[in-house]
Amino acid sequence: MGRWAQLSANELNVLEGVFWAHGPSRDALSSQLEFSKTRANAVVAGLIEQGWLDEVGLRASSGGRRAETLQLHRGLGVLLCADLGATSVEVAVLTPDLQVLARHGESIDVRDGPAVVLSRMRTLMRELLTRGGIKPKQVIAIGVGVPGPVDFASGQLVEPPLMPHWDSYSIRDDLRADYEAPVWVDNDVNLMALGELWRLKRTLPNFLVIKVGTGIGCGVVCHGEVYRGANGSAGDVGHICVDPDGPRCHCGNLGCVETMAAGPAIARAATEASQTGRSAMLAERLNDQGQLTPEDVGHASRAGDAAANGIVQASGALIGQMLASVVNFFNPSHVFLGGGVTRIGPLFLASLRQSVYQRSLALSTRHLEILYSPLGDQSGLVGAGVLAMQEMLRGRGKVLPA
Amino acid sequence: MGRWAQLSANELNVLEGVFWAHGPSRDALSSQLEFSKTRANAVVAGLIEQGWLDEVGLRASSGGRRAETLQLHRGLGVLLCADLGATSVEVAVLTPDLQVLARHGESIDVRDGPAVVLSRMRTLMRELLTRGGIKPKQVIAIGVGVPGPVDFASGQLVEPPLMPHWDSYSIRDDLRADYEAPVWVDNDVNLMALGELWRLKRTLPNFLVIKVGTGIGCGVVCHGEVYRGANGSAGDVGHICVDPDGPRCHCGNLGCVETMAAGPAIARAATEASQTGRSAMLAERLNDQGQLTPEDVGHASRAGDAAANGIVQASGALIGQMLASVVNFFNPSHVFLGGGVTRIGPLFLASLRQSVYQRSLALSTRHLEILYSPLGDQSGLVGAGVLAMQEMLRGRGKVLPA
Repeated sequence: MGRWAQLSANELNVLEGVFWAHGPSRDALSSQLEFSKTRANAVVAGLIEQGWLDEVGLRASSGGRRAETLQLHRGLGVLLCADLGATSVEVAVLTPDLQVLARHGESIDVRDGPAVVLSRMRTLMRELLTRGGIKPKQVIAIGVGVPGPVDFASGQLVEPPLMPHWDSYSIRDDLRADYEAPVWVDNDVNLMALGELWRLKRTLPNFLVIKVGTGIGCGVVCHGEVYRGANGSAGDVGHICVDPDGPRCHCGNLGCVETMAAGPAIARAATEASQTGRSAMLAERLNDQGQLTPEDVGHASRAGDAAANGIVQASGALIGQMLASVVNFFNPSHVFLGGGVTRIGPLFLASLRQSVYQRSLALSTRHLEILYSPLGDQSGLVGAGVLAMQEMLRGRGKVLPA
Repeated sequence: MGRWAQLSANELNVLEGVFWAHGPSRDALSSQLEFSKTRANAVVAGLIEQGWLDEVGLRASSGGRRAETLQLHRGLGVLLCADLGATSVEVAVLTPDLQVLARHGESIDVRDGPAVVLSRMRTLMRELLTRGGIKPKQVIAIGVGVPGPVDFASGQLVEPPLMPHWDSYSIRDDLRADYEAPVWVDNDVNLMALGELWRLKRTLPNFLVIKVGTGIGCGVVCHGEVYRGANGSAGDVGHICVDPDGPRCHCGNLGCVETMAAGPAIARAATEASQTGRSAMLAERLNDQGQLTPEDVGHASRAGDAAANGIVQASGALIGQMLASVVNFFNPSHVFLGGGVTRIGPLFLASLRQSVYQRSLALSTRHLEILYSPLGDQSGLVGAGVLAMQEMLRGRGKVLPA
């Protein structure tokens, strides 16, 4: 941290500009920052000399212009990132410009509580660094995504519905035992949104990311920044009511979209379809495996099973109905879909889209695009990297107590 | 405009700071703008000399500190504002610091179209100026609110559902015939939100304003700025579904909250209650007047009429149900209520609140406050004034073609 704390505001601005622009030319950078070329060149020259920036792609030109690209110096260190889901954990080592150096994912059950889950996560992080020959002190910053609401300032979980035993737990304090680097924790869908924002180089100011897995969450980007709400719970769309006469959710209310359309509801509907003889294919799988997952429903649907098709369509339609309300209210330009359940088959997206376009106002959907997140299942990890770098580049690494 | 176009960026920043802070001290202004005191004092001195700012409340002090308040010079001119509703129009003349100098309101029917309605609005504006002895060229800027979606850049209405014949109509061009001043047009609820933001001196970054009248709309403030969405239709919450089996709305869908709970639905329910003998009080009023309004239901409810109470509570509960979805998604710190129907009686607010607190997640509502807009029925006019001043102070007055 010593070196980072000595950067001036101008230097941090230049580094942040380079990070968000994915390797800009000097000219692009100075016009983006509204710096004069002279001033930008002076700051850039200093940063190159001090080993913060590299200049790549230099071409010797015959008197014409040089094509130069600035990028963050690879030797700065690495980012350590984790994307914790309800049933899986992914850890990765990233370069400062978010190239994945190493990655590992495996199944966990977040309900086992922080002692079990974080001890495993820390082991995986250590192993990943050891395998890459990277020392803990080379870690610049750490970013972690979790499947629940986070008080962003303290980094603590706040009554996460899918994570019993984690309320008020500080993952930050836990990781401080292993690393000197600062740690930032955020909701997994906020990080997916941050990952998309970086991928898009901030060209879209207002969009949503919907994640469907065990739960349903929504990342919100507004005025070009991730929006967390007054208490950090913005985007908690899983408990929006889609049927006042629907089944009771664990939150106590009736007809929440999460309880009717997310992973566990799909698995429940599949079990019911096999037990009532509506799907021989699902019944066979249930017999083989002892239980059914959303993936099983996806397989059956792609193989043409009518009951599975119905389950996939119902889930897409209900999530689309929730999304229609959100689109009317928020009028985003894009909705990006992520999370395992959204990949359950083409009928899911078709049925979700139909529901949104039918239920939202024409003006809100005229230019609306609903599509899969191009970052795919990497978006959470990339977002954790963006969070860690962005906070360092905004000079917030130094305000955290050591 | 000549004088405004000559202001430097620093001068505009200082004037904008004074405007938003409602008359700050020099010290408060310089710390708010992150200017040094020396630099702030130099800019302020120049602006006082050129007649842009006044210093008021100067006290001769015995060697101690002086209490000085800066305010925009009254002689700068006036703002002309209009708040056009579905059934009423309000026009006002405001000082640059948003004191109302003169105001007039009357009933209109926006469905009569722009030729009829705007001709009346322009007459009212002229009369108001004449009565105050103010010349058209003293008008600095004009702000207009309309009950429909507006493309903010062009100032044109975009398929406004409550305003047939107004699609693509440019109120800006219409007013240019009378005034040289620049004209800005926005949705009425966006202006209410802007009015609240100014009243609060930007101290709350994330809140909503809900207006219930003939329609239902929502103004959104996010990261301290009014949020208009990708196509200017953010906050169009009237067509959020609250009952998939509900009645058909003019938008084509079933169970939209607007068609079930706004002014016309309340009047319809009241007519039905009188005709089916459930309310003698409403029947008597219907007999006297030939028709019933939401105000009649409010009177009957306050007089203890059970059917009227039921109508008021049903409306509050349905709007609360819609708001619960929006609160889960947006996690605002405050929801301010405005528009005639929200004042229909105490049962409305109680029933709306109950619905929100029951249906939203605990984390979103833990610190949520739902209350009446303190600006009351002036919020739209004040917001139109804020819009006009803000655009001038951001130097956008000069970019408009003359």
